[in-house]
Amino acid sequence: MHIVKHTFEEYLQVVKTFHGSEAPGVVIGGFMVDLAIRHIPDGILYNAICETRSCLPDAIQLLTPCTIGNGWLKVMPLGRFALALYDKYTNEGVRVFVDTQKLEAWPEIKAWLFKLKTSSEQSPESIAREIAQAGENILSIQRIHVRPEIGKKISKGQIGVCPRCGEAYPINDGEVCLACQESPYTG
Amino acid sequence: MHIVKHTFEEYLQVVKTFHGSEAPGVVIGGFMVDLAIRHIPDGILYNAICETRSCLPDAIQLLTPCTIGNGWLKVMPLGRFALALYDKYTNEGVRVFVDTQKLEAWPEIKAWLFKLKTSSEQSPESIAREIAQAGENILSIQRIHVRPEIGKKISKGQIGVCPRCGEAYPINDGEVCLACQESPYTG
Repeated sequence: MHIVKHTFEEYLQVVKTFHGSEAPGVVIGGFMVDLAIRHIPDGILYNAICETRSCLPDAIQLLTPCTIGNGWLKVMPLGRFALALYDKYTNEGVRVFVDTQKLEAWPEIKAWLFKLKTSSEQSPESIAREIAQAGENILSIQRIHVRPEIGKKISKGQIGVCPRCGEAYPINDGEVCLACQESPYTG
Repeated sequence: MHIVKHTFEEYLQVVKTFHGSEAPGVVIGGFMVDLAIRHIPDGILYNAICETRSCLPDAIQLLTPCTIGNGWLKVMPLGRFALALYDKYTNEGVRVFVDTQKLEAWPEIKAWLFKLKTSSEQSPESIAREIAQAGENILSIQRIHVRPEIGKKISKGQIGVCPRCGEAYPINDGEVCLACQESPYTG
């Protein structure tokens, strides 16, 4: 049982170091990325879309060249536990999702996905065991074409100095930078 | 010269593996995270805000416990090259930014921040050398208090099956899931 270039045990270790715990979503995400990579052509340059903010972005960042900081991973909070990997140039690719129709045999995974138990009712050991047993049997895959506007890199345009805070900012953002327009900080 | 728990050379290697290249923003980001961590109390649980999508989120993810997938890192695309680390419970913390007033002595870094050169005009070697020499001398730090609504985790609420795509989704999103309302894919 391999997760891209790791053994399953190695992957759990990598997840723990990066994510802080062997969270079910990141472990299932490992199988999802593995399945997706096996269904795109070798050697292409690809981008990733993650349809949820929870857990799954970390599986993608750990197992593919796509990260938030390099811009190849785009998180679109659509509320589905799914990801897509697609060719940067053609926008063609695959989408992998947790298939609700395949969950009947896996009550712990189902309870996790549908939040049927509180975190104190969940047993981390039972769910980890089910995830390892289920592997990709709870997943489905489909071909997708990503809307061309989504992968596009938009240039920031010219950079100036914000007259209020004195920091560099894209002058297209306005007379002052976005943070001076509405700051996340008080005082 | 250390970047959190790495030597500078080790950090460059970690950046290359994760981010794909030793991009200036991630390398400067290493000094920024290092400076911020030294100015928050030891042993506190903290969240991170990154004020740009470019490069800097990867330095935070590599050097702190905060990642996109575990929700402790929030990317707010405010267009400033800055980050904040703050106490999860009190919202008090520090903000580190590239100080435009300190850039006169560092022409390559200034050219990078203000996009004064095209990428073909930039010399990766000269900018890397300047970044290593400058270290934290191009940075400033300030105490901040994060608006309480920003760090708050909002529960997804109840999860149901989308009647259109058949996948799990937060029923608060509507009659059908957000992706069925406006899909990033065609066909």
